[in-house]
Formats: sequence, structure tokens, C-alpha cells
Amino acid sequence: MHKVSIIRITDQGASEIEDRVVEEFSLAIIFNDHELVRLLCSPKNLNFLAVGFLFSEGLIKNKEDIKEISLQERTGAIRVRSHRFDKDISSKRFIGSSGARGFPSDNNLQSDAMVGSLIRISPNEVFALMDEFIKCSDIFKETGGVHSAALCNKEGILIFHEDIGRHNAIDKVFGECIMKDMPTDDLIIITSGRVSSEIVLKVANKNIPLLISKSAPTNKGIKLAEDFRITLLGFVRGRRMNIYTHKGRIAHNESR
Amino acid sequence: MHKVSIIRITDQGASEIEDRVVEEFSLAIIFNDHELVRLLCSPKNLNFLAVGFLFSEGLIKNKEDIKEISLQERTGAIRVRSHRFDKDISSKRFIGSSGARGFPSDNNLQSDAMVGSLIRISPNEVFALMDEFIKCSDIFKETGGVHSAALCNKEGILIFHEDIGRHNAIDKVFGECIMKDMPTDDLIIITSGRVSSEIVLKVANKNIPLLISKSAPTNKGIKLAEDFRITLLGFVRGRRMNIYTHKGRIAHNESR
Repeated sequence: MHKVSIIRITDQGASEIEDRVVEEFSLAIIFNDHELVRLLCSPKNLNFLAVGFLFSEGLIKNKEDIKEISLQERTGAIRVRSHRFDKDISSKRFIGSSGARGFPSDNNLQSDAMVGSLIRISPNEVFALMDEFIKCSDIFKETGGVHSAALCNKEGILIFHEDIGRHNAIDKVFGECIMKDMPTDDLIIITSGRVSSEIVLKVANKNIPLLISKSAPTNKGIKLAEDFRITLLGFVRGRRMNIYTHKGRIAHNESR
Repeated sequence: MHKVSIIRITDQGASEIEDRVVEEFSLAIIFNDHELVRLLCSPKNLNFLAVGFLFSEGLIKNKEDIKEISLQERTGAIRVRSHRFDKDISSKRFIGSSGARGFPSDNNLQSDAMVGSLIRISPNEVFALMDEFIKCSDIFKETGGVHSAALCNKEGILIFHEDIGRHNAIDKVFGECIMKDMPTDDLIIITSGRVSSEIVLKVANKNIPLLISKSAPTNKGIKLAEDFRITLLGFVRGRRMNIYTHKGRIAHNESR
């Protein structure tokens, strides 16, 4: 966290105070000597971010695909060596979209399997997870400038990360899963951010049956969740939530 | 806007309702026969988005640089022809970052001029602009899923756009300015989104002296605003705001 001197104006007038702001870092990801991308991110857990990013892009599948990973703080570069080599990589165009990335075209959906989990959860369990999620969000509380993502089971949060990007936060979670060889079947993802098609795709790639967001989904996010058999919950705030898809996993009669 | 049938759970139990969700569109931008990028965006004012994107990437400078622009709704592609041709374009890598894009490296800062405007504004004028900005945000009110951006003078909003991406919303605003040959010196940008270095750079490129955000800035966003002599206001909510840089343009003594 970074401190800056600012002027705060309120009804009581203006005062000079010291404020904390979120840090922005520019990370180059170099995969087998190809610089793939430069991500604006939060400067923490950059190994997890790089691994999660490479997984989301389909360039690695698991921990065994990583021969070596090294971060050069000075140049802001992380180098990953793998015996996997995508021969299209040099022609691959990394796409910036609004608040998004990767995802060269609609045809590149990597997830070919439906998520077949039989997990069931009650609204009260969802609300409890969201309460815990919000309590974890330290940087957000101090700076208001980050997204968070968490991997959970019904009992609580297993992995939690924050980043200035909602994609990065999720990639850090999956990067940690991969580095720790942790299976994600039957688990739950919580995100603070909007659920676009790209976010659903990331979650489908990890075979996760339940995606919970504090924010709104897009129509394509909903469509993909439907297709991949992911239960999508949005606007989970206070004691309210919207169930967009595959409601069978939500035991909502039991909650009354 | 798109309608979906959802289950809403509240303290009163579960009910099936029809809800509006924000639409997601995948737009390919083809510049002189090179597909540059595919943006996830909101399907409105795509011409402005394409022109604003090309400007932000430094590929066009003004309306005269556009020979032809045509949108193919069916394929989701917009073709822009220009006599300007960046010979590096095919090797240029478009970068996805978290909630960001473009911006190949820190060395690529395009804006070389300081913003030298003598505009002054009072906090009450800022609050009035933010009130008007929030009133304009129709899609957000209905779906909670978009960002907005507006170009204003002290008297009110001149151009307003919404998009699922905070970058896209600003690009649409600047795209409209360029298509209408509208100068932006001495004007004001309002954004609903976080202010990272990339956002400040866009604003500096249009020589705009005042950037107002409902959200948080990052440390690099503040640093660039300082360097480019842009007055940066964040967390403008209700009757409160933070002045991060170049406070001389804010007549805050007059507001008491």
C-alpha cells in the first residue's frame, strides 16, 4: 500500500490528510522466452498470477507443465519455462477488452466439458461465505481500489486474493491451486467483480460448479454458465441474491 | 438490454422474476485489413468505440485520418481504413491487463505535453456535475453492470457513454469528440471507474486538465496525473471528494 498526501473535502471543509492508495504494478509475463503480455496488477503473489494467467490462456495445464519460474523484481518480468510449447504462440494476439483480456475469439472457448458436480448449498451458507469474503478484503477496505476472489467450500474460504484487476484476482486463486496441486472440483468461486463470459470460462476451465458474485453478470456470462452447467449467483449482498442459472444446486426452500 | 428469468431470494423468500441484464458484445476492430483486437463491449455506438480505441492506441490522430469506417453487425467486425499506417502494427502486441488494455510498456507513454489549462472549479460545481452524471446512468440503474464516462464543461455534461468496460466508455466519449471535430481543451472527464495509469494517459492524450472519478485511483494513476499536470479528484460521492493532484484548479476555499 502506498501513502499519498491529499486534500479531502467534506461538509466540514477542506483538510490535508495522508491517505492510502492501491499500488499498480506492470508485470511482463515471459513464457519460453516469448513476452506474452504485460499486465497491470497488484504487486503481490506474482508467481500465482503468472501461473493462473498461463492456465487461463490454455498454455499450461498443471504444475508439471512448469519447469522453472523466476521473478525479476527490477525489470518487472516473470519468466516461466515449460516443456509445453504452443507453436502458435508468436502469432497469438493477446486481446485487451474492457476490463478483460486473453480470449482471442468466440471460437476459442477452451472448456469442453460440462461441470457435473452434485454440490448443494443453501442461501444461508452463501450469505455466510459472502460475509467472510467481505471481511477478508483488507486492501479494499483501506483503498477502495481492488477486486477480490476466493476459492471456498461450503464451510469457508480456502484461498483468497486481491488485485486491481478482477481477472487477475481469479488468476491468482487458480495459480495458487495449480502450484499446490489442489483439486477444485465441487468447490466454489466468489468474486467481487462483474461476471462476463471470460470470467465464466475461467471458472469452467477449473471445473467449478458454483460462481458467486457481489456484482452483475452480463447476458453472455449467463449464457455460458447455463451451457457449462455452472450455478451463477449475482448481486449477493446482505440477505439478498439472484440465481441466474442451474438453480437446482441452491436449496432455497430450506432457507425460509 | 436483455431480459432473463431469474430467482430472487430475499428475506421474504424466493420468487421467480424477470430481470434485465447488461448485454455483452464481442467487437473485432480491423484497421487497414489488420485485425487489431477483439473487445468485449456494450453493443452501442461501436463507431465511436472503434475511433476512440484507435486514438488511444496512437493509430489515428483526428477525423481526417479516417478514410472509411464500416460496421458489419453480422460478424461483429468494424473496419477502419486510414492513410496512416503504423508499420509496426503487425508486430504490435495488444496487451490485456486487468481491466485494462493496450499500453505495451511503460516506455510507450504517448502523451508528451503537459496539460496547461487555467480552468478553475469549485467543489459545489464538481458535486453538481457528479449528480448529473449519476442521473444519466440509465443502464447502470437497471442492470448494475456498466461503467460510464462523460465529457463536461463547468455548466454540465456534453457527451455521455456507458459500456461494460471503463476503458470503452472513455474511448466512446473520445471517439465521438473526434468524429465531431470537437476540441477537448479546458474540458472535464468524469468516470465511474478506477483511475489507473492507462486511464490518466488517455485523458492526457486529449489535453484534458480535470479528471473526476467516483472510485479510487492507483498510485501510478496519481503519479501520471501529477506529471501531466492533470487535476485528479477521486471518491467524489455525496458532498465529499479527495483531491489527489494539482489542487490549484479547485477553488475549495470558496465552498465553505
